[in-house]
Amino acid sequence: MVSAVINGLLTGAESGDDVTDSPLKGLKDQAGIRHHWINSGFGALPVNSLGQGWNGEYVFNSGDLVLDLLHNFFLENGARMAKIRVYETTDHPIARQMLGYLFVRGGVHALAYAKALEELTGVDVKKMLPIPNIPDADFKEARRFTDQGMHGKLYRFSETDFEGIRQLWTGTHPLDGTPLEVIDGLPETAGGMADPPEAPAVSSPGLHPGELAEVVQKLMRTM
Amino acid sequence: MVSAVINGLLTGAESGDDVTDSPLKGLKDQAGIRHHWINSGFGALPVNSLGQGWNGEYVFNSGDLVLDLLHNFFLENGARMAKIRVYETTDHPIARQMLGYLFVRGGVHALAYAKALEELTGVDVKKMLPIPNIPDADFKEARRFTDQGMHGKLYRFSETDFEGIRQLWTGTHPLDGTPLEVIDGLPETAGGMADPPEAPAVSSPGLHPGELAEVVQKLMRTM
Amino acid sequence: MVSAVINGLLTGAESGDDVTDSPLKGLKDQAGIRHHWINSGFGALPVNSLGQGWNGEYVFNSGDLVLDLLHNFFLENGARMAKIRVYETTDHPIARQMLGYLFVRGGVHALAYAKALEELTGVDVKKMLPIPNIPDADFKEARRFTDQGMHGKLYRFSETDFEGIRQLWTGTHPLDGTPLEVIDGLPETAGGMADPPEAPAVSSPGLHPGELAEVVQKLMRTM
Amino acid sequence: MVSAVINGLLTGAESGDDVTDSPLKGLKDQAGIRHHWINSGFGALPVNSLGQGWNGEYVFNSGDLVLDLLHNFFLENGARMAKIRVYETTDHPIARQMLGYLFVRGGVHALAYAKALEELTGVDVKKMLPIPNIPDADFKEARRFTDQGMHGKLYRFSETDFEGIRQLWTGTHPLDGTPLEVIDGLPETAGGMADPPEAPAVSSPGLHPGELAEVVQKLMRTM
Amino acid sequence: MVSAVINGLLTGAESGDDVTDSPLKGLKDQAGIRHHWINSGFGALPVNSLGQGWNGEYVFNSGDLVLDLLHNFFLENGARMAKIRVYETTDHPIARQMLGYLFVRGGVHALAYAKALEELTGVDVKKMLPIPNIPDADFKEARRFTDQGMHGKLYRFSETDFEGIRQLWTGTHPLDGTPLEVIDGLPETAGGMADPPEAPAVSSPGLHPGELAEVVQKLMRTM
Amino acid sequence: MVSAVINGLLTGAESGDDVTDSPLKGLKDQAGIRHHWINSGFGALPVNSLGQGWNGEYVFNSGDLVLDLLHNFFLENGARMAKIRVYETTDHPIARQMLGYLFVRGGVHALAYAKALEELTGVDVKKMLPIPNIPDADFKEARRFTDQGMHGKLYRFSETDFEGIRQLWTGTHPLDGTPLEVIDGLPETAGGMADPPEAPAVSSPGLHPGELAEVVQKLMRTM
Repeated sequence: MVSAVINGLLTGAESGDDVTDSPLKGLKDQAGIRHHWINSGFGALPVNSLGQGWNGEYVFNSGDLVLDLLHNFFLENGARMAKIRVYETTDHPIARQMLGYLFVRGGVHALAYAKALEELTGVDVKKMLPIPNIPDADFKEARRFTDQGMHGKLYRFSETDFEGIRQLWTGTHPLDGTPLEVIDGLPETAGGMADPPEAPAVSSPGLHPGELAEVVQKLMRTM
Repeated sequence: MVSAVINGLLTGAESGDDVTDSPLKGLKDQAGIRHHWINSGFGALPVNSLGQGWNGEYVFNSGDLVLDLLHNFFLENGARMAKIRVYETTDHPIARQMLGYLFVRGGVHALAYAKALEELTGVDVKKMLPIPNIPDADFKEARRFTDQGMHGKLYRFSETDFEGIRQLWTGTHPLDGTPLEVIDGLPETAGGMADPPEAPAVSSPGLHPGELAEVVQKLMRTM
Repeated sequence: MVSAVINGLLTGAESGDDVTDSPLKGLKDQAGIRHHWINSGFGALPVNSLGQGWNGEYVFNSGDLVLDLLHNFFLENGARMAKIRVYETTDHPIARQMLGYLFVRGGVHALAYAKALEELTGVDVKKMLPIPNIPDADFKEARRFTDQGMHGKLYRFSETDFEGIRQLWTGTHPLDGTPLEVIDGLPETAGGMADPPEAPAVSSPGLHPGELAEVVQKLMRTM
Repeated sequence: MVSAVINGLLTGAESGDDVTDSPLKGLKDQAGIRHHWINSGFGALPVNSLGQGWNGEYVFNSGDLVLDLLHNFFLENGARMAKIRVYETTDHPIARQMLGYLFVRGGVHALAYAKALEELTGVDVKKMLPIPNIPDADFKEARRFTDQGMHGKLYRFSETDFEGIRQLWTGTHPLDGTPLEVIDGLPETAGGMADPPEAPAVSSPGLHPGELAEVVQKLMRTM
Repeated sequence: MVSAVINGLLTGAESGDDVTDSPLKGLKDQAGIRHHWINSGFGALPVNSLGQGWNGEYVFNSGDLVLDLLHNFFLENGARMAKIRVYETTDHPIARQMLGYLFVRGGVHALAYAKALEELTGVDVKKMLPIPNIPDADFKEARRFTDQGMHGKLYRFSETDFEGIRQLWTGTHPLDGTPLEVIDGLPETAGGMADPPEAPAVSSPGLHPGELAEVVQKLMRTM
Repeated sequence: MVSAVINGLLTGAESGDDVTDSPLKGLKDQAGIRHHWINSGFGALPVNSLGQGWNGEYVFNSGDLVLDLLHNFFLENGARMAKIRVYETTDHPIARQMLGYLFVRGGVHALAYAKALEELTGVDVKKMLPIPNIPDADFKEARRFTDQGMHGKLYRFSETDFEGIRQLWTGTHPLDGTPLEVIDGLPETAGGMADPPEAPAVSSPGLHPGELAEVVQKLMRTM
């Protein structure tokens, strides 16, 4: 339901830094969401492909555990469908790399909900997977991650988080027998925070270089 | 997601017919959706318990058949949960009778989606039912309908509608062995159109009795 | 207010069936609603030209009969205006054919509301028609239907539906004298259900051909 | 569609001025829109009876003059219906006085649109009025204004505003023959700006009396 | 938050007047909001760059004066940022001229809120301006207005409007020392009402020239 | 803008566990959001006092650093105003305790934005605080936390998070001179996860006690 908007895809979209020289003119005639750069410059936004923000009403929490897990099982697969469609829409290598990663990580979540439903109802829900019926490994950008066994790894911040998860996330992956393991800490593949370049055409960060240097100096003196 | 608003529940809510005599004053101090009678009088509305209208975006139609059936299977059960909560909120006998009927009919739809998913994926989805885990027959207002075997009947307008449904809706009900049958035509229990009384306090239908008689006479002469 | 989205207009929009080969790339750079194919593939959606779903709040039901008819009279004409604008936007022959049909059928509804208002208020509302002031017959794609007198035919499912309608829908069409008649049953021109082709690029229907054959066989055995 | 929210209706709703003494507790248990005083104190808001803000999409401006007038003619009457319902919901004398005034003024607008439609289409639209079918003069709070002939007066800021209006707003009122006249300037009955009392319980205006005096003094010195 | 939609930018967008000749076809393939011309022809709309209407919920009126002024101070600057982005997106001379005017007028409002906050809190808020950090005078289309000292003029309808404003809007502009003055009446630069040409392709005004003449004649006779 | 909905406030709202015995009937007649318990049982929801979900569009990220900080400075103070109004609406000791805590923590954020704005613009923004003009310490439920100096503590997960924050969050609190310090890790006062009781009346967790025991046993065997 909520499509990813990729941080940095607009990076470099301007023609020059001079705001009086129509540096965003090239964007106007492209299909896309003008509201994005008019209001938010080149940053990432938590909005869908209609420009609608993520909404707290998307959280489904009825209290009934089976129903809640069923919803989330559906949701993970619905998201996988939408991400596959986005993948089909672009051949940009960074976008596809990111999507390949998301297929694998989203697949872990779908399997986890399936296993939880199986525990509670005895129904072998995981046999429905993958939905849509295309294994992650069919996408070459995902294969890099399945080759590392990432479709079998569930991450948590520390061993005191989600203490019951180890009992559930056990056994092997139904598609290829990869062992399922719970990892305490961040994925090794995790990158750092994005550090996008300054973009004066959209007033980012909104200070002249001299001003910024001055602020930094002032801050340093307070240490 | 969409709660039922019951036709006729506001019928008789006015105190008298004289609009200058505050006939709706009693409603103002009750918890409820004032927007309902201010804009729509005492009629039924396709809105939820926040007063938000049913929305076409609720239709999930991704193209992927398994995903679409999974969504609708979830939706029927989510609706059943909400209807049970409404049932728990009222002891009005007509409201509870209507809800008892809806539990049974919604249960038929949930089972139909479960059986379709089973055909496509081999997973015994129907074993998850009922969700929430309370059989229809536990509600005395539903039992009247389960006693007639209505939880096993799927209705269609005629034998040329949904021609494939007969292959799917076959066998017996997983909870009590009631035979599953496809009925061509309306349920015997179907009532006629509601014929709510005039409600001058909300200008319904908006003509003085004399005017209405005159219109009817004029129309009759044209026959 | 609600623009039609035409079933099948996206049919064939993909380039090939291989999801790893960016088959939807051609769509990305066209003006249009990306949210449509990302979430719903090539099917029809009940959404307007901003991608917003049809909403139950569009139903105007105040209880006051004159006001409700006046609203619907406006609504039919507003819809006609929007459809004419869509017509002006495209020269796709199928789209224009469908619009021509809708002009004629929508015109019947506008005239019906006008006649009902006239009965109740004595005002010759139908003299306002057509709105916008362009007769259906000026559109060659509509003329095919006006030549068959379809602007004078009001359909209902059977003679027991809307029993009073025959008294109202009587006389002749104010524009060209075509007799007004109530037809019990479907229009002769009604087509069957659309049967769009499989579209593997958007996982429709989401099964491999072999799987589908197997499902069908299994279903046949149960008969 | 948009219900009036009355300036000042919450005035005095607090119990005392001490914010640590739950001065708004009495409001919590009344039916009403809590969001109003939580976010906006006791002021007036341009929201409807669901708390939804007035929306620019309510402006109907299709370009087609007949259609636009027809929309606005409907809208004025729909608003009259909602206002009558609000009137029926309350016997608060100030609220009813305000509504009585609005019935009369809204009736002028409905008649103006009716007359414009008649000029353009020749249809005697004004014969439909009043909608709902209750004359303003039936409401004693409106009669005070009809007795002054206010249902025949159309106001504009000056004689250079809406120059064509004098040709349209001419003749007599269809219900009682009151002469129609265009007035240049404000109604004599117009009050001044509301001057609601300070309401420390909701931080209005948000300054301690001493601070306010100081600010005023400082401002005076700058004159 | 709310982007300006410029009256007249669609003027002349049609190819010819014949509605049966796809006069709006050129618009379909441009990036832009199709919903605009389908529903509203070529007129201006109070909607943002997603096509969402201005909403009454944008009015922030908490009762706390400092908080309300702080909100509006933010809002004026946020609007300035969005308008600068729109400016960067186009080199259309009329659009840029209008934006240049809006930079200057919006800047007056931002400064007025800053001065009011300073009076109430003693904080020199105006020192934050301009936000984004580009003076109006850097835009050549704005310089025409700053050269006339318009960044120092606050307009009100008459000397009885906003009586306190003269105490606040006093002194000189913090950027260039232009004297701040309150003007009673409209700006000399104010144009008249826009008088867009007829646009038969979108049924504006929806009457044939002969009909219009007839209506005007009829109206004249009533004088 | 977004009001807190307190986890557990509905806990115990049912009368008994038997769903056929109208256990939620008591809730129906209270002012409140029925949609909450109908769809979400007794859990917490990220919705405001109109039942509208938190929305990603509330994130303001224009790229311009001064504008973004100004927005967030406003937002923290706007939230403080709404929280004070909620406090004024209830005398429930747990609700007031939670609000007292939030006043103090929200005050830290407001001050942090004020200090950042001061660094960038030289304007002494913090002098505007508190908004509304009531110090945290005036609320006895907040004083417990100010007595511990919590209005001077900024928390981050670890010393590698937000590395620049130590340069900014330095000096003393402008109201009472409490030293400002950055804490690496959770507040000592942090509680554990809420562990609400089972609520069979709303099907939470949706399993019979026997079933739950069985699931737990099965899970234990897999360890």
